[in-house]
Amino acid sequence: MIIFGIDPGTATTGYGVIKKDKKSKHNGLILIDYDCIVTPKEQAMPLRLFSIQKDLKRLLRQHNPDCIAIEQLFFGINSRTAMTVGQARGVVLSTAAGYGIPIFEYQGLSVKHTLTGSGKADKKQIQKSVMKYLGKRKLARPKSGYIDDAADALAVAICHVIRTTNDKSQMTNAKKR
Amino acid sequence: MIIFGIDPGTATTGYGVIKKDKKSKHNGLILIDYDCIVTPKEQAMPLRLFSIQKDLKRLLRQHNPDCIAIEQLFFGINSRTAMTVGQARGVVLSTAAGYGIPIFEYQGLSVKHTLTGSGKADKKQIQKSVMKYLGKRKLARPKSGYIDDAADALAVAICHVIRTTNDKSQMTNAKKR
Repeated sequence: MIIFGIDPGTATTGYGVIKKDKKSKHNGLILIDYDCIVTPKEQAMPLRLFSIQKDLKRLLRQHNPDCIAIEQLFFGINSRTAMTVGQARGVVLSTAAGYGIPIFEYQGLSVKHTLTGSGKADKKQIQKSVMKYLGKRKLARPKSGYIDDAADALAVAICHVIRTTNDKSQMTNAKKR
Repeated sequence: MIIFGIDPGTATTGYGVIKKDKKSKHNGLILIDYDCIVTPKEQAMPLRLFSIQKDLKRLLRQHNPDCIAIEQLFFGINSRTAMTVGQARGVVLSTAAGYGIPIFEYQGLSVKHTLTGSGKADKKQIQKSVMKYLGKRKLARPKSGYIDDAADALAVAICHVIRTTNDKSQMTNAKKR
């Protein structure tokens, strides 16, 4: 089963692809790919959104995921940010629906809590946890954008596996390592 | 020149198509089409957004507009609304960009002021003004959704014509009739 995690944004949309495979020694997970879709600030918004859509279509065709996991927006943010992130989310959700891929949404707080045991975990703690789950000592910088956005996308993908897997004991152990 | 006005929303996206034609007695404008893209509340958000995209693509192919006019979001609204409208806007903007159609954005206040002379005009006053500009005594109820959303879409299309036309005197007269 292939899970495609997304952390959407108009400037940077992070993505992370993992495979759930019982044969893997690392919590039954295999890291397939991660990177960011970056759009230039000087470009008009419609073109930036179209380029997110185009890149996402290419990635979904390439990885052919069984499902998509995406962070649910936190409503405490200001309306300008909500609007901008909303635009990128709209593109991501409609594109995924166009391919008939099921989408699962998780609140940021819930992703943090599921991976680290604390809803207050910072970016570094999230990355550490992502590396542990995937059995990696390091996450190399993505080709585009920042590791933070790609790691957040991997985190929501891992969160989906943990929350839907039957093998919860194995997953829980990872946190204690 | 064909102008496609849009008032985006996840539940109801109003649209209005007008033609700028010097031969028309009604301020050089001809009403081509107006209606709403309505998505069912019980449907999952990604599917609703995908259906907006699908319907919009069909309409853009049908009317082949020279440009799109869309209302800019007012940032005073709450983040939940900003987010939801943002999602629909994202789909509309990326779809339009995919067809290479230029997009012009106008603030709601500015649309009201341009059409009625007052930024405080209510829905009824906007509709009255739209009818005057298009030389119509009545705007029949659209097949789907509400006349308010379709009229708002026509209003932003008319606003674009007024703001970009050289023949401003003719347009101004319409308000005084």
